[in-house]
Amino acid sequence: MQNVTLKVEGMTCGHCVSSVEGAIKNVGATGQVDLSAKTVQIQFDESKLTLDIIKGAIEDQGYDVG
Amino acid sequence: MQNVTLKVEGMTCGHCVSSVEGAIKNVGATGQVDLSAKTVQIQFDESKLTLDIIKGAIEDQGYDVG
Repeated sequence: MQNVTLKVEGMTCGHCVSSVEGAIKNVGATGQVDLSAKTVQIQFDESKLTLDIIKGAIEDQGYDVG
Repeated sequence: MQNVTLKVEGMTCGHCVSSVEGAIKNVGATGQVDLSAKTVQIQFDESKLTLDIIKGAIEDQGYDVG
């Protein structure tokens, strides 16, 4: 299991938190957004998923992954 | 037909715009959010609807109507 923290720009409200956490869940990982820190902590199984897939899912919601 | 502009605090992103405009539509009015001005222009039929109902619908989404 991998545990990664990503910097994500553009999250401003609870809707954004839901969008980002939902996108992460949709690809089979779990994530917890810290809105004030502009970060997302992600846990995923590296045998099933890559970080690039997760980053792509977040970016598809309109956010910049730093 | 009434045309009213309300000040709404707490709208930060496109999701917020959708929530507020959707809430206004749900009670039978139409509204256009100006995110940078933090305002909503609302058109409604005063024979069918009151401004208080519209304000309530916006507040129910978690925003403060000034």
